[in-house]
Amino acid sequence: MKKVAVIMGSDSDLPVVDKAMKTLDEYGVPYEVHVYSAHRTPVQAKEFAENARSSGFGAIICAAGKAAHLAGAIAANTTLPVIGIPVKSSTLDGLDALLSTVQMPSGIPVATVAIDGAANAALLAIEILSVSDEALAQKLSEVRAKNAEAVLEKDKAVAEKYN
Amino acid sequence: MKKVAVIMGSDSDLPVVDKAMKTLDEYGVPYEVHVYSAHRTPVQAKEFAENARSSGFGAIICAAGKAAHLAGAIAANTTLPVIGIPVKSSTLDGLDALLSTVQMPSGIPVATVAIDGAANAALLAIEILSVSDEALAQKLSEVRAKNAEAVLEKDKAVAEKYN
Amino acid sequence: MKKVAVIMGSDSDLPVVDKAMKTLDEYGVPYEVHVYSAHRTPVQAKEFAENARSSGFGAIICAAGKAAHLAGAIAANTTLPVIGIPVKSSTLDGLDALLSTVQMPSGIPVATVAIDGAANAALLAIEILSVSDEALAQKLSEVRAKNAEAVLEKDKAVAEKYN
Amino acid sequence: MKKVAVIMGSDSDLPVVDKAMKTLDEYGVPYEVHVYSAHRTPVQAKEFAENARSSGFGAIICAAGKAAHLAGAIAANTTLPVIGIPVKSSTLDGLDALLSTVQMPSGIPVATVAIDGAANAALLAIEILSVSDEALAQKLSEVRAKNAEAVLEKDKAVAEKYN
Amino acid sequence: MKKVAVIMGSDSDLPVVDKAMKTLDEYGVPYEVHVYSAHRTPVQAKEFAENARSSGFGAIICAAGKAAHLAGAIAANTTLPVIGIPVKSSTLDGLDALLSTVQMPSGIPVATVAIDGAANAALLAIEILSVSDEALAQKLSEVRAKNAEAVLEKDKAVAEKYN
Amino acid sequence: MKKVAVIMGSDSDLPVVDKAMKTLDEYGVPYEVHVYSAHRTPVQAKEFAENARSSGFGAIICAAGKAAHLAGAIAANTTLPVIGIPVKSSTLDGLDALLSTVQMPSGIPVATVAIDGAANAALLAIEILSVSDEALAQKLSEVRAKNAEAVLEKDKAVAEKYN
Amino acid sequence: MKKVAVIMGSDSDLPVVDKAMKTLDEYGVPYEVHVYSAHRTPVQAKEFAENARSSGFGAIICAAGKAAHLAGAIAANTTLPVIGIPVKSSTLDGLDALLSTVQMPSGIPVATVAIDGAANAALLAIEILSVSDEALAQKLSEVRAKNAEAVLEKDKAVAEKYN
Amino acid sequence: MKKVAVIMGSDSDLPVVDKAMKTLDEYGVPYEVHVYSAHRTPVQAKEFAENARSSGFGAIICAAGKAAHLAGAIAANTTLPVIGIPVKSSTLDGLDALLSTVQMPSGIPVATVAIDGAANAALLAIEILSVSDEALAQKLSEVRAKNAEAVLEKDKAVAEKYN
Repeated sequence: MKKVAVIMGSDSDLPVVDKAMKTLDEYGVPYEVHVYSAHRTPVQAKEFAENARSSGFGAIICAAGKAAHLAGAIAANTTLPVIGIPVKSSTLDGLDALLSTVQMPSGIPVATVAIDGAANAALLAIEILSVSDEALAQKLSEVRAKNAEAVLEKDKAVAEKYN
Repeated sequence: MKKVAVIMGSDSDLPVVDKAMKTLDEYGVPYEVHVYSAHRTPVQAKEFAENARSSGFGAIICAAGKAAHLAGAIAANTTLPVIGIPVKSSTLDGLDALLSTVQMPSGIPVATVAIDGAANAALLAIEILSVSDEALAQKLSEVRAKNAEAVLEKDKAVAEKYN
Repeated sequence: MKKVAVIMGSDSDLPVVDKAMKTLDEYGVPYEVHVYSAHRTPVQAKEFAENARSSGFGAIICAAGKAAHLAGAIAANTTLPVIGIPVKSSTLDGLDALLSTVQMPSGIPVATVAIDGAANAALLAIEILSVSDEALAQKLSEVRAKNAEAVLEKDKAVAEKYN
Repeated sequence: MKKVAVIMGSDSDLPVVDKAMKTLDEYGVPYEVHVYSAHRTPVQAKEFAENARSSGFGAIICAAGKAAHLAGAIAANTTLPVIGIPVKSSTLDGLDALLSTVQMPSGIPVATVAIDGAANAALLAIEILSVSDEALAQKLSEVRAKNAEAVLEKDKAVAEKYN
Repeated sequence: MKKVAVIMGSDSDLPVVDKAMKTLDEYGVPYEVHVYSAHRTPVQAKEFAENARSSGFGAIICAAGKAAHLAGAIAANTTLPVIGIPVKSSTLDGLDALLSTVQMPSGIPVATVAIDGAANAALLAIEILSVSDEALAQKLSEVRAKNAEAVLEKDKAVAEKYN
Repeated sequence: MKKVAVIMGSDSDLPVVDKAMKTLDEYGVPYEVHVYSAHRTPVQAKEFAENARSSGFGAIICAAGKAAHLAGAIAANTTLPVIGIPVKSSTLDGLDALLSTVQMPSGIPVATVAIDGAANAALLAIEILSVSDEALAQKLSEVRAKNAEAVLEKDKAVAEKYN
Repeated sequence: MKKVAVIMGSDSDLPVVDKAMKTLDEYGVPYEVHVYSAHRTPVQAKEFAENARSSGFGAIICAAGKAAHLAGAIAANTTLPVIGIPVKSSTLDGLDALLSTVQMPSGIPVATVAIDGAANAALLAIEILSVSDEALAQKLSEVRAKNAEAVLEKDKAVAEKYN
Repeated sequence: MKKVAVIMGSDSDLPVVDKAMKTLDEYGVPYEVHVYSAHRTPVQAKEFAENARSSGFGAIICAAGKAAHLAGAIAANTTLPVIGIPVKSSTLDGLDALLSTVQMPSGIPVATVAIDGAANAALLAIEILSVSDEALAQKLSEVRAKNAEAVLEKDKAVAEKYN
């Protein structure tokens, strides 16, 4: 199976990003985690991106805050799907990271998820792998159904309380 | 080859979305175009999404403006990767569509591209298909290189003018 | 008397939504509470909406955060008045939920109240029922008068302190 | 049948508001149109609101731009459902009017629709009347179905062009 | 001497507004404090505004949050200068109150100060009274000079620490 | 009678500011117009402000766009009431000028009006002068009444057309 | 004299950026102009940055729109001062480019000027060179004085018209 | 060596600004710290700016919040490079200070860094001095390399934990 890369711009993003690893674990999808900064270690970031496809990766998740260039910098050096997680920092409530991640110029897309949306970034990576992996597709459907049931049970609990 | 679906919430989005079809044509990727509204034709939208994987689609592009629910409504009914294009409408400069598309709750990701970013939505779909399609991966690299050369030629033109 | 439905996208919205139930209780208006997610339990949400009018509901209150599609998804499946409460979540201070709820396309209105405005959502539902229910209209006027008096007493208290 | 009031803060809002009257005409719902300003003719606005229920109105639509106080000022003087249309003016793209209309304090709700959303404001008023008027409810369902078909025809047209 | 009125929309605004009273005390300017709501006690708000000039007021300070209509509602009923303090509430960081207060339509100005800027609102009222009161003008200059000295002393303290 | 000063940061603001002069003319209030820049002619701006009170001014109107410092720079050098008009420029729709004008620190208030709100700036200046000038107060009431009548006539026109 | 580099992300930015070259010409400061894209020609951008200091540059101006990563990408590869011009594009009024340029993480500063502020970017570069170049410092003072005089002449023109 | 000036509008900004002094210490760059307010001590601010170049300064860092005029006011009185730090205050998350600092009119640039970005402001000042100081340039490169290594060590730590 293709691997998923999870890259964060700073290890201070780890509490947010950790949900991505948890989700990948849940699906048994192999992954590699790295701390690379678009600005502080541009060489390593570039090298990783250039070799990602041949190293067996199928998707790259990038998490960064503020003027979040990491996903774009990675995407500039690979044609694999790159998924961006805008990380909320101490000012502007994540809006800076969201716009820096999603408003990419024509030619270099970044698949952006919600601010701090690490679980969804992992799910999106899994969905991408599932396009050519029926077992994963099956697993995604099962978890969906399980999640729906969880909501319905909450519905029951709330209904019992109020209705 | 897997197909790409391009769905728009209203045919008034066509001038924006057309670049997606042009890009898919450029890569020779088969696609289907639809006008489905999350709110006005929810049944058809749902049905399409539910059957998309078994119908041979590998990614679904959804374009919508304002309170742009289309991508999310499609994503709620499939585990294929869903790509959202927030479309700028007459007020708020696309911010409403961007937030409505990207800020998805945990469990149902939407891969969001820039406001009016139809070409990048198509490229992202192609990158997704390329994960298991080496010819597409090759083609993506070639176009990247060609685009880089185009920039360098513009650099030369500008340099000649000013330097 | 027609009933009011109170639907929330996640039971984590309960602390915000609870004021709606309290307000409906205050007016003796019957209601039903549900947890349905536009994205995680779309089938149940749709079914509820389609049957709401024939089940005796007169208004449906929907509370959701982030890319808040719940009110729109319900409104797409009923012609009853649907009232949307945008719920503030951990980023963007509720602006995402507000725009996702209020900026509905032509044909499918959602009556949006303030961010986290659950009490007003219930009041709006009661005002809607009051159009054909004189006793409720009377009750609304009485509570208004009582609230005005409460403000005037606070005015007196403040005036005594400062004037 | 109850009537609908359509009030605008300035006759310069007429091009936006006109769609409300067109929609009410389409449904055969009787209405009255007024130009009252919360700030320039507060006495008339207040008087109208105080008498609206006894004059046979079932809902009041208010359209205003900038620091849009009209809907709130009317709602302060009636317990009928008040629907607010935030009108985009020359600066800030309607955000000022949206926030001034929707962020009402507890006790005085305003049912806010999209910026410049006059057709939806009228539809919402009709939905409110339909709670106790089966013929209107029927009519709403029919128009919904017709609109869905219009979308499907556009789908066919687009599909023919591209697929 | 003319009096200054300080009106707040809710007594929950008192912690913010209190600095206005402290500043007026510092200058020995007489004032009256009230809790009037544009929406919950519109009659009292209107009456107060209509009689303010003849009751000896020279300026009216109004503090309100969210869809802050209080200053505008008061200004609609007097031609005295009305000063608006937008109060930050639990969502949107005061932006809603700022836009609702400052974006007044032509004909009815509101002199808006910073979000939660109660001290400056009082200062502005004092400056307005000072136009025809030399003693106040003198006092304003003295406090300015004293404040400048306070800054210079802080400069000295910081300079000693670092330079 | 005290005079009003109208200062703009650049003569490109003249089309916006002109309404201030028109309004002052309408009330027969004497005024002086200047182009001073907080950044390009700081010396002249400061000098004007320092002498404004002794030169017979009662209020100073300042119009500026972008990082609009003019009103604050003038206010730093006088204790007369300073009125700020945030001017919309080619980007950000006036939000930059609004925040730069209104968010003044404690001690130096600026009475801010709506973006491009030159007529209201003049009215506010006149209201300030009216605190000690009964004839102006009388004139303000008359124009208010006239404006109300104009709205009512528009109401009649609209009512005739639609009702 | 050190040279200034002017880099733009796309030659479509030329109409905005041209003012930088005009300003540098006015001061006789030598410069080089390039079109390099952080995403489409990352290799060339990086190479240019790495060699900029040894090639005789004293400052690098970078102009880019949308998710404007150019200035940051250049700054990541040089310790010369990098000046960022956020360029307004078709959506979001330049806010995306501003935040993407200015909100740089600790360690890699970008000296950001106003949206579309090319003339100021050039002036800032000249000010930087002037730190060790007295003739430039002298020239800057002279132009400042000339600009102040231009404002004063406009003041005179406006004063003649109105006063 | 030229000195760097660090000016803050209020000593309450000290906790933010302190990182600038720490960074300058790290590089052994001499500096002076001051508390000057554009509004409360405009005379001292102006005097300092006018004499800064002849006093041996090479760059001036200015930190201020809200309607942050300090950097602009300093820049109006010197042709040295002025670096602005927008400081986040109790409302609007620093957006007001950012726009007030960066959106300077043509002719008077301010080199703006991120909200609360004091360390980067100091680094930018050092980069400016490094244009004519090879030892500083060398030191900047060394610290960059050290920072890159720190990131790589964090990468190793994270990789060990997860991979």
